[in-house]
Amino acid sequence: MTAFNDLMAFQRDTEALGQISWRLGWDQETMMPHGASDQRADECAAIEGVIHQRKIDPRVGDWLAKIDDADLDETGRAQIRLIRRAYERSSRVPERLVAELARISSRAHKIWAQARSNDNFSEFSPVLKEIVALRQEEAQALAEDGDLYDGLLNEYEPGTKASDLEAMFGALRPRLVALREAVLDKPDLMGLNNTFDPEGQMRVTEKLAAQFGYDFNRGRVDKAVHPFSSGSGNDVRITTRTEPLDPFNCFYSTIHEVGHGCYEQNIDQAYRLTPLGRGVSMGVHESQSRIYENQLGRSRAFTGWLYGQMRDEFGDFGVADEDAFYGAVNRIKNGYIRTEADEVQYNLHVLLRFDLERAIISGDLIVDDLEAAWNDRFEADFGYAVDKASNGVLQDVHWSAGFFGYFPTYSLGNVYAGCLYEALRGAVPDLDSELARGDTSTATGWLRDNLQQFGGLREARATIEHATGKAPSEGPLLDYLEAKFKGIYRL
Amino acid sequence: MTAFNDLMAFQRDTEALGQISWRLGWDQETMMPHGASDQRADECAAIEGVIHQRKIDPRVGDWLAKIDDADLDETGRAQIRLIRRAYERSSRVPERLVAELARISSRAHKIWAQARSNDNFSEFSPVLKEIVALRQEEAQALAEDGDLYDGLLNEYEPGTKASDLEAMFGALRPRLVALREAVLDKPDLMGLNNTFDPEGQMRVTEKLAAQFGYDFNRGRVDKAVHPFSSGSGNDVRITTRTEPLDPFNCFYSTIHEVGHGCYEQNIDQAYRLTPLGRGVSMGVHESQSRIYENQLGRSRAFTGWLYGQMRDEFGDFGVADEDAFYGAVNRIKNGYIRTEADEVQYNLHVLLRFDLERAIISGDLIVDDLEAAWNDRFEADFGYAVDKASNGVLQDVHWSAGFFGYFPTYSLGNVYAGCLYEALRGAVPDLDSELARGDTSTATGWLRDNLQQFGGLREARATIEHATGKAPSEGPLLDYLEAKFKGIYRL
Repeated sequence: MTAFNDLMAFQRDTEALGQISWRLGWDQETMMPHGASDQRADECAAIEGVIHQRKIDPRVGDWLAKIDDADLDETGRAQIRLIRRAYERSSRVPERLVAELARISSRAHKIWAQARSNDNFSEFSPVLKEIVALRQEEAQALAEDGDLYDGLLNEYEPGTKASDLEAMFGALRPRLVALREAVLDKPDLMGLNNTFDPEGQMRVTEKLAAQFGYDFNRGRVDKAVHPFSSGSGNDVRITTRTEPLDPFNCFYSTIHEVGHGCYEQNIDQAYRLTPLGRGVSMGVHESQSRIYENQLGRSRAFTGWLYGQMRDEFGDFGVADEDAFYGAVNRIKNGYIRTEADEVQYNLHVLLRFDLERAIISGDLIVDDLEAAWNDRFEADFGYAVDKASNGVLQDVHWSAGFFGYFPTYSLGNVYAGCLYEALRGAVPDLDSELARGDTSTATGWLRDNLQQFGGLREARATIEHATGKAPSEGPLLDYLEAKFKGIYRL
Repeated sequence: MTAFNDLMAFQRDTEALGQISWRLGWDQETMMPHGASDQRADECAAIEGVIHQRKIDPRVGDWLAKIDDADLDETGRAQIRLIRRAYERSSRVPERLVAELARISSRAHKIWAQARSNDNFSEFSPVLKEIVALRQEEAQALAEDGDLYDGLLNEYEPGTKASDLEAMFGALRPRLVALREAVLDKPDLMGLNNTFDPEGQMRVTEKLAAQFGYDFNRGRVDKAVHPFSSGSGNDVRITTRTEPLDPFNCFYSTIHEVGHGCYEQNIDQAYRLTPLGRGVSMGVHESQSRIYENQLGRSRAFTGWLYGQMRDEFGDFGVADEDAFYGAVNRIKNGYIRTEADEVQYNLHVLLRFDLERAIISGDLIVDDLEAAWNDRFEADFGYAVDKASNGVLQDVHWSAGFFGYFPTYSLGNVYAGCLYEALRGAVPDLDSELARGDTSTATGWLRDNLQQFGGLREARATIEHATGKAPSEGPLLDYLEAKFKGIYRL
């Protein structure tokens, strides 16, 4: 057991350094003075370099070679499984490739931002080609069974195959397209048409975070340009933003990030600063943020409570009653931008990106043809043409950062949220009456006890199966969306 | 030159990690959620461990052995001098001792806090004995010429000997005691007797920081229980505090920390993330904070401007005119606590600690006799008896943290500030008329050009000599204090 204990002690420091890296990221987006950015880049490079060296440290390989799984309990085996996978991934990718990717993505971010502001994809495509070539090389080093994309996907969603996602997303798409068309054939619903004091929005934000069980003693809420959650264990911080015309942006960003944050806060304290002490995958993480935000936060019952809170904070803001408010929260509108999309259309945006980036990595689609492919696919699914590149192929930062394999975890998270919500409703028949009082404790307690507390103990898909008692599929999400929007739009 | 370049690249990352450590310390005192403290201790231990391993990394020794000073320019030689000294210091202290000191100081802090709240030195003395024994062992490993205390002092004030300080402080003490007695024989001056809105105090704080040249684009001001400055180069953050009854605590804490912060901000950008890119010693650092706070900030001219700012912010606060305000700022009162002491009595507090801790480290004084020795010395210098341990031997955190050799740098900083102020007045005859307008730019510019920009290029004492053109001594500080308080108290 000496090798196991030595490895875990070493890993504990690596995890602690990873937490520090999170803290620096939080600081950068919330507190750091503007003029510190160049120096911060050097500071981040230094700690990332230390963490990377620890990941590929030959002692890790030696310890792993000496450890026999048969000597370990379930927790120990899970720890070693995660450490071994990370070590093998890191060891397969040549140092030169890691360094080149880091250098080029830093450069690509600026080029992408400039190209987007000029609405000119051809400014971005040369550097994107370089990124794609490097990621293809990395995928080659990582893929185990021929599908290059799997090598990249597994960085974000270990143990999940692109072919599984393809089947799942293939079943999602036609029903989402049909639901979208049916809704948009009906009369539009009323939205908000008022201004909402940012300080009042932040007061409601604090209440919302508390109602959803966020522990302020081990976290804090600040403002940032792009909302995010950061950290694990006992230091999990979230951010939100305020726009005077759109308080829903603030409130649902908050609930979304609270979902991520509560997942991290609720993992078994015994796993703190170990590989099990972090959310198991991006998809499972997103399932928590989405079920908090959508299935719970945008439900008829909870929006009734939120309507009362907003009336208390902002007075009469021009929405007559709870039913009209529920419609305003869930209104479906045409739009080009993924991050602004509603529950129905959001996944269509993601599926588009998944199919395109799979084709790019496999070589079936070349970067020069990417914009046209994007525009064709968008028009096929949404029924109208992209007007400019910043509303199309240039809208997301991900590819400029080399994040291929990341997008599908968004929709996988929604699918998982659908599965969890079905199981939750079965377990808690009286859910709506609690949500109508703003009380999410039974729902979030169920998620904590059946999923969140386990952290990385099981693989992502097994984590969902353990919580729901069955294999995940897209069916529950589709059933939920169709029932919900048939009700709202009287289809 | 390969060895030099390799070493500097390695050192650059070490410096960057040191900056991250500063950032974590800042976060801990300003932003960190309360429940994160245990986890943060693990995170700090991890990065401190990494930094320590880099300091004693055998490659540093190899590189140093290959570098010939004759191949380097002045800057390169200074870099190597600092790296070599740090490497030799770290290499001389056994790992076991470093670990034991870290473990025991963490435990001792809690014991000290408890003993202080119980006013019972005997609760603290057992752990203090352990700390003293470890620091004596460390001093033995570090001292080069027989005086154990020098080994510890050099951690904070490289190149300065305790015997030099003894001569300097020996000359300070009688004239300070006499000045103190003369002042306290005169009628007391009026202090403040009002309440001052904390938000108003923070508005004045922002103005004061700006007037003294603090660059908000590369820093920020927050509140903390104990004011401090943190970081170097382009990310230098300061803190202050507000107490409704005592705005001077806020304002002079701010100016003091701005002095530390501007020193760091004004170091040559070419030295950023190198050993030269930090203030050269604690004493020189304190000379900057003190000259900003006292010689400039508590001058008759500048307090005239501050009086106007406070009238603008707080209205009539019960002080009739600038002269009365100048008296209130510089009022001398009896008191037990070092951190609350005025310009005259502060150094008497420090000299007491210096003499006692020298005797402790040399073995001439044993821990069991420390409280009695403290109380005797206090009564000798201040003329009245210590009433309880929390007002005496238990008041400071330093010894519980193992910081022997730190106290004298406070008074050395005041001595250096006296030397710098004498030179500054010679160089800028019209200083008072600028300060009376709240304009410190000529004074702070002189400090920047003659001292701050050089960072660690020269040794501490040589840094002062370069700025003033002569060897530092206690004379200018004493002349300044006697002249100032003779004026204020009409001695």
